[in-house]
Amino acid sequence: MYKQDFPEGKEALNLEIRLGNKLVRFRKFTGKEKIYLPIQRHTDKVIKLIDKDSPPLEGDAVITNLKNVEIGVRTADCVPIILLGKEWVGAVHAGWRGLKKGIIAKTLKALKEEGEDDITALVFPSAKGCCYEVGKEFKEFFRRNLKERNGKLFFDPQREAVEQLRENGIKSILVWEKCTICSPELPSYRRDKTKERMLTSVVILF
Amino acid sequence: MYKQDFPEGKEALNLEIRLGNKLVRFRKFTGKEKIYLPIQRHTDKVIKLIDKDSPPLEGDAVITNLKNVEIGVRTADCVPIILLGKEWVGAVHAGWRGLKKGIIAKTLKALKEEGEDDITALVFPSAKGCCYEVGKEFKEFFRRNLKERNGKLFFDPQREAVEQLRENGIKSILVWEKCTICSPELPSYRRDKTKERMLTSVVILF
Repeated sequence: MYKQDFPEGKEALNLEIRLGNKLVRFRKFTGKEKIYLPIQRHTDKVIKLIDKDSPPLEGDAVITNLKNVEIGVRTADCVPIILLGKEWVGAVHAGWRGLKKGIIAKTLKALKEEGEDDITALVFPSAKGCCYEVGKEFKEFFRRNLKERNGKLFFDPQREAVEQLRENGIKSILVWEKCTICSPELPSYRRDKTKERMLTSVVILF
Repeated sequence: MYKQDFPEGKEALNLEIRLGNKLVRFRKFTGKEKIYLPIQRHTDKVIKLIDKDSPPLEGDAVITNLKNVEIGVRTADCVPIILLGKEWVGAVHAGWRGLKKGIIAKTLKALKEEGEDDITALVFPSAKGCCYEVGKEFKEFFRRNLKERNGKLFFDPQREAVEQLRENGIKSILVWEKCTICSPELPSYRRDKTKERMLTSVVILF
């Protein structure tokens, strides 16, 4: 069985979600984890992992059906998304560029090609509209989830991700509505150029 | 340690969320669980459980700081909510009557009186606006989350619960956006008058 190295601390911000035979985790990245992580470059590339010894490839989403092989993505303001099918699971790193290039739709397509038709999505904390100030060009990139306040423009990538999931037929969505920028306990590149990252991962236990 | 009697089935719709020293679970109610359950009557009464041997009382929310004492609520369309403070936790059963009477605000008030000022809320599946048809009187009960479609009126109690949480200062909210009425695997009184219930619970592990 998968050893759950869950820290015992009361304050630990580690969220662990178990749904059927799948274990989803949201925790600080340490670099010591035994896990498959893509080389994230804000692309729309989806990696299909079918060999647990594959080297990391460039991409911003991973899908697999391998048992006991944890896959994940790292974020510090971008939107981390886990997708749970019956046999296949996925992890997506969706920054504004990925959202614009359609990484969510492409990952769902890859899962559907494997026969998954009843997917639950889990969307974790990211920058939110309360704090994520963007340039005027965002009005050309996105047609929603943008708000003007005191002459500045704010964007909510988490809401955008949820709406893209819905548009692609996902009805079961678990969203942790929490902003990384104004949550000091969460790493935020926008807030303080931190090198720290949260690791969002999934493993099929049996 | 708390024995996790988590069924091993792949399809098991049991969601288990661990956040720090707290274990939150969403599973089919069997009646065999060792758990404190209020006598639910769609009230706005909050029970403060400080003695693990207290008899069940009438109410639609429970708060406790007792270790290893699981508390929960049962639902089949109403909104189940778990509230996580540092030392205190709560479970709320919010049907439209409870939402109208302010059971959420009253439970948060009870937690704040115990010194909790940084609460995370977890909101689980309930009836949603896609399916929950209501009478015209709802326009007097609620000023939002109501939609007219083909001459019928629909209400979304889950969205209403999330907005009430926000209005009462809760910034960290984890919502499983899923409608019980159109999810056959979930009990729904509205759909088929079932006696089955989902049990949403929380326990402080250590």
